[in-house]
Amino acid sequence: MPLLVMKFGGTSVATLDRIRRAAKRVGREVANGYDVIVIVSAMSGKTNELVGWVNETSPLFDAREYDAVVSSGENVTAGLMALTLQEMDVPARSWQGWQVPLKTNSAHAAARIEEIPTDNLMAKFGEGMKVAVVAGFQGISPEGRITTLGRGGSDTTAVAFAAAFGAERCDIYTDVDGVYTTDPRITKKARKLDRIAFEEMLELASLGAKVLQTRSVELAMRYNVRLRVLSSFEDNNESAGTLVCSEEEIVESNVVSGVAFSRDETKMTLTAVADKPGIAAAIFGPLADAGVNVDMIIQNVSDEGRTDMTFSCPTDQVRRAEKALEDAKSSGDIDFGGLKIDGDVCKVSVVGIGMRSHAGVAARMFKALRDESINIKVIATSEIKISVLIDRKYLELAVQALHDAFGLETAA
Amino acid sequence: MPLLVMKFGGTSVATLDRIRRAAKRVGREVANGYDVIVIVSAMSGKTNELVGWVNETSPLFDAREYDAVVSSGENVTAGLMALTLQEMDVPARSWQGWQVPLKTNSAHAAARIEEIPTDNLMAKFGEGMKVAVVAGFQGISPEGRITTLGRGGSDTTAVAFAAAFGAERCDIYTDVDGVYTTDPRITKKARKLDRIAFEEMLELASLGAKVLQTRSVELAMRYNVRLRVLSSFEDNNESAGTLVCSEEEIVESNVVSGVAFSRDETKMTLTAVADKPGIAAAIFGPLADAGVNVDMIIQNVSDEGRTDMTFSCPTDQVRRAEKALEDAKSSGDIDFGGLKIDGDVCKVSVVGIGMRSHAGVAARMFKALRDESINIKVIATSEIKISVLIDRKYLELAVQALHDAFGLETAA
Repeated sequence: MPLLVMKFGGTSVATLDRIRRAAKRVGREVANGYDVIVIVSAMSGKTNELVGWVNETSPLFDAREYDAVVSSGENVTAGLMALTLQEMDVPARSWQGWQVPLKTNSAHAAARIEEIPTDNLMAKFGEGMKVAVVAGFQGISPEGRITTLGRGGSDTTAVAFAAAFGAERCDIYTDVDGVYTTDPRITKKARKLDRIAFEEMLELASLGAKVLQTRSVELAMRYNVRLRVLSSFEDNNESAGTLVCSEEEIVESNVVSGVAFSRDETKMTLTAVADKPGIAAAIFGPLADAGVNVDMIIQNVSDEGRTDMTFSCPTDQVRRAEKALEDAKSSGDIDFGGLKIDGDVCKVSVVGIGMRSHAGVAARMFKALRDESINIKVIATSEIKISVLIDRKYLELAVQALHDAFGLETAA
Repeated sequence: MPLLVMKFGGTSVATLDRIRRAAKRVGREVANGYDVIVIVSAMSGKTNELVGWVNETSPLFDAREYDAVVSSGENVTAGLMALTLQEMDVPARSWQGWQVPLKTNSAHAAARIEEIPTDNLMAKFGEGMKVAVVAGFQGISPEGRITTLGRGGSDTTAVAFAAAFGAERCDIYTDVDGVYTTDPRITKKARKLDRIAFEEMLELASLGAKVLQTRSVELAMRYNVRLRVLSSFEDNNESAGTLVCSEEEIVESNVVSGVAFSRDETKMTLTAVADKPGIAAAIFGPLADAGVNVDMIIQNVSDEGRTDMTFSCPTDQVRRAEKALEDAKSSGDIDFGGLKIDGDVCKVSVVGIGMRSHAGVAARMFKALRDESINIKVIATSEIKISVLIDRKYLELAVQALHDAFGLETAA
């Protein structure tokens, strides 16, 4: 029996009515001849409420208890979804993470999936169960305690199940109808993509297009799980949503697939750093230890043994970065003049696998920004992405200009 | 290390503040040298919300899914309580039913506890854990699915843990400060009892004094677990609350310990029943099969081979009882003229182990009611209880009269 994984996010199961609508979609796939594994999030708002309680109770919480508390929302939805399907005469039952069991490591609150044995669920499919409803976001550690996979972890749960069970496809139902060339709130010219390559989606996801959790896309790429992102709130036909798939499945595409952005970036510059071999490691080692996700890095030309080192990181990690750097300075591990913090920046990026075979993308990008008199503060590039840090006030203008410059309004 | 079980009901953990207050009580017992097992209910209102969702989703629900859903509230409180204790530097961790594991049978939504292995928790106590916070109300079936023990099941969880771990005492923290001679809302003369025997508590619990779940008292009696009922909202000294204990621990007591009542009773009379051997079984068998809890039964004098059979049951089971009886009549299993239903009745009972050694209790009760011109419709007695069914409008009057007649205002 072919198998589908269908994942419903928090807004798609926010009320009993919405759970019913979601269940109807599942029922249709069962009628189409599929066995289905449904992954559910908590009803929207529930997990935030639980996280709030934990933070209020214990600011530096024991992550094992955090996991025990915040995983409970998904259990509720899983049971209600199974009941709803049963009411529609679809044989279904719910599974909590530990019942599957979805085995993870012991990194509580950010656990990695280690194994999903298929025998328990397959035995039930063999007995006539048509739908296994699995609580997303949660697993069990080697110590037998409940773990969670980090916010948005239900996407990762879904992809991991699709990989483990060799599902034909993994459909992610959410509150948007697909992946767009950019955020439609910034420009009405934004266009829904029919297909996008894993690599592109990965760059978009990590750049702040919040449709899919980054890890879920990584996992899908590694196991070649075809991911479809589509809306819970519309009637979807065969070609609805956006298919995230391998490059080979994409016949034609624009050089650039999308324009992504992130508002919550801060630029930090260490001035007059003593320039000597190993200085980068001495700076970025302590930052990594402090859990700072350093994004872009540039080192300026050295001047008489001193250099400036600029990097960016998410705004909410600035305090931690500052402390790590000051500590390293106090302990003599690094030597610098000062630390300049520019919190008024944003990051805008163009992403596309077409860049690999097309020259001149960077030049076109810089020209488009120059034409709008937008000053570029930092540049970083990868094989399929060019990112720039600019003043935050130019964000919308830059996104619109780039969307136009690369002709994203129309498909290739 | 001596061990205590402390159970906190829904109102005692309704907010983070109340959880903190409860945790402080736990901390004091730890400071007194106890290892503590804390049993928690869901925050008040949560379980009702979950039950409501299940009923709305699926009126004839799959009890396995019901259990998966409604057990989630306790998990939240258990984690939050453990975190709160940790914040107070008390080594604590939470346990869900399946982690202990609290093993039950497979009677979902009304499961019976079969075994509580002590090794997991004892190992952690051995490692320095001072408090095990256990989610009440839930367990795991032989099939590995989550079970619940029925409403109020956290009391039963608490007593079962106290029995399994040989606890010195099981303290039940609730929103009242103990067990009263009768409901203080009916008469201000109601007096808190310092001690009450298991048998008496059992009669009071099953008669509608909603302080403790009946099963928890049965279990406490069987394993001789000393139960103390006390308020979460007051400072309690050593003699606070009410101790529910074996008869031997009660030196002096009144002949009658309390006056209980139940409003939700209905009197049903089958008229002109063909009177023959086995007729009672033929009537009450189908009622039991239909899940009707028949309480009082009287059979009137037989008249020419026909008799009247009167019984009472909870009002919300009347429809089921009617249907079971009509079905039995249609199928020829029983033969009766008609069915008269009197829904306007209530049950009032006097309870006391002193009755065993004192004659004349019934006479005193009937006289007190007669003096108020209250007509008795049905009488039932047990070794330590006399119950009467009377018109509902006399309930308050009857309770007050009996409270006075047996001098309950003052202790023995």
